Amino acid sequence: MAQGPRENIDEADRRAGPIVLSVDAMGGDQGPKAVISGMAKSAAKNPDLQFLVHGDAAALRPLIAKAKLDDRVELRDCPDVVSMTDKPSNVLRHGQKTSMWSCIDAVKTGEAQAAVSCGNTGALMLLSVMRLRKIPGVHRPAIACLWPSRNPAGFNVMLDVGADIKADPRDLLQYALMGCSYARNGQEVRHPRIGLLNNGTEEHKGRPEMREAHSLISRAAKTADYDFVGFVEGVDIPSDRVDVIVTDGFTGNVALKTGEGTASLIRDLLREAFQYSPLSRLAAVLALTSLKRLQKRIDPRRVNGGVFLGVNGTVVKSHGSADATGVSAAIKLAFKLGQKDFTNRLAARVAEGSVLVEEDNRRSGT
Amino acid sequence: MAQGPRENIDEADRRAGPIVLSVDAMGGDQGPKAVISGMAKSAAKNPDLQFLVHGDAAALRPLIAKAKLDDRVELRDCPDVVSMTDKPSNVLRHGQKTSMWSCIDAVKTGEAQAAVSCGNTGALMLLSVMRLRKIPGVHRPAIACLWPSRNPAGFNVMLDVGADIKADPRDLLQYALMGCSYARNGQEVRHPRIGLLNNGTEEHKGRPEMREAHSLISRAAKTADYDFVGFVEGVDIPSDRVDVIVTDGFTGNVALKTGEGTASLIRDLLREAFQYSPLSRLAAVLALTSLKRLQKRIDPRRVNGGVFLGVNGTVVKSHGSADATGVSAAIKLAFKLGQKDFTNRLAARVAEGSVLVEEDNRRSGT
Repeated sequence: MAQGPRENIDEADRRAGPIVLSVDAMGGDQGPKAVISGMAKSAAKNPDLQFLVHGDAAALRPLIAKAKLDDRVELRDCPDVVSMTDKPSNVLRHGQKTSMWSCIDAVKTGEAQAAVSCGNTGALMLLSVMRLRKIPGVHRPAIACLWPSRNPAGFNVMLDVGADIKADPRDLLQYALMGCSYARNGQEVRHPRIGLLNNGTEEHKGRPEMREAHSLISRAAKTADYDFVGFVEGVDIPSDRVDVIVTDGFTGNVALKTGEGTASLIRDLLREAFQYSPLSRLAAVLALTSLKRLQKRIDPRRVNGGVFLGVNGTVVKSHGSADATGVSAAIKLAFKLGQKDFTNRLAARVAEGSVLVEEDNRRSGT
Repeated sequence: MAQGPRENIDEADRRAGPIVLSVDAMGGDQGPKAVISGMAKSAAKNPDLQFLVHGDAAALRPLIAKAKLDDRVELRDCPDVVSMTDKPSNVLRHGQKTSMWSCIDAVKTGEAQAAVSCGNTGALMLLSVMRLRKIPGVHRPAIACLWPSRNPAGFNVMLDVGADIKADPRDLLQYALMGCSYARNGQEVRHPRIGLLNNGTEEHKGRPEMREAHSLISRAAKTADYDFVGFVEGVDIPSDRVDVIVTDGFTGNVALKTGEGTASLIRDLLREAFQYSPLSRLAAVLALTSLKRLQKRIDPRRVNGGVFLGVNGTVVKSHGSADATGVSAAIKLAFKLGQKDFTNRLAARVAEGSVLVEEDNRRSGT
């Protein structure tokens, strides 16, 4: 684990003092109440948190007052809301007065260090790309999610899980570089192990573009300071073989939702199993603490927060159906990334990575 | 649920009397002992089962004798074994003396009604395609798996889970027709609901070829007598919204293994949770029956058996690491399909489906 001077970028002190998060209070399935409750949960634990809240001021003001957040919140009144069914292109054309637009713009102007929204993913991504612009050198931004795993950290990072349905080998290399930076800054993994998701671990497996991506990511490993473990399979996503799983947004989205569906089925079957007989109900009472511990490990609300990587600003997409616990997890993540000046670090990594890969390619004559 | 005369195909009586299964006893991770034990388990429950067993006769004979299977088994001595790392193309060129080759050929000659192997999937698929040939009209054969679900049957069917990494819209339509036939004959679902796996359920989602496949499968629904529920997401795979999930082999393979990985992580965390304290260990004892019931529902051994669809013969691929319980599940499935003369029914469905789709296309002028 030799640490080059570049590692100092990540070792720099965190930004001291208050962090302002820009929060889109509208657009989630559970309404503004869940968002404000989530903010209150986080604010109670963290005195350094300040909020810029965007939405219907008349509806939000009493909620904020009730949550005793008046001195932590600045409110921006926005007459419009992006709904879950709005087409992203329409939002871009006509959405200037929406809470989502205002939320992203507060990051653009530098008033806030990161944005959080539970709204329409496609619209949030398109607004982020168009208003914040892509980081130089990034072709396709990506959404990174956290996945409960056997790793000591308890989570793995996977990207892209749905920003773009396509990714060519160069994009997959950039996902590796960006995922690596996110694992360092968001998950405190110093020397991330990167895996490329495929339908088998043998080097001859998969589509030709997968093998090309394998070669690119492998060649960049040393210069960009990560371990490349090669191809990984679906079964490795929650494993301790790897810290970052790289894939295209179509496959990543299917995998993420398959994992959610499987976990939810098992949770329900477990509940049924413990309600089956008086004896099993007694067992459930005795096992309550154990079961709660398990529940906490695999609770999707705790890993709530897809991070948009590759745009000039930190944007955290909370699950549309997030409750207060879920929103609070997304806020905690946004705070951490804001405090670390994540966007600039990631941009530095991508720039440096790209340059080093070019040099490497020149040297190896490819 | 109007049933046309075509439905009679599926309502015909099962083949009476003994069914001969061709079993490749070599090549699984657990060796021939697990295979013979699995056969013994099945044979004890089912007097109509007969076996043609392929492999190293000197090693197999004592195992068969010990399992008291002598009168149910005909042994074919094969000097060679296909290993898990053998390249399929090499097996095709030099594998004439392997147990896998002999196993498939017994289906080709009609000596057995179905084949079962725990060996190398790629080699088994290539041998099946080259020795048995594709069913007329099928472009890409597929592997269909069973997935624990909320449906009354307890399982959904998904295909392709790894026969081919590519699939164009016409292939996906054929997967729908073949999956439909398998759900009828293997899972007793009369009027299967078909879903097309995508990164969202809205009709504008996904790659262009997904939207084309959507249109093809939708137009064939009435004539081929299934319900098309449209796009489904990963979270729907274990749901009760759908009976058959159609996808390309790359995505299906990743989804299958992601589901396996997630279930295995939760199983381990559950075990840990119940070993945490004396109280939780006591709870585990009380909950034993309930937990076993859950375990049985999600036990991957019970859903063991990927079926190759689209070749002239029924071939069941058992998991490489299958133990006796897993092998026995694969044998049960092969028996059921053999008894129903599945291959011919599927061929009829595909032929009929293709014709009807062509007619439909002509009528609608496309």
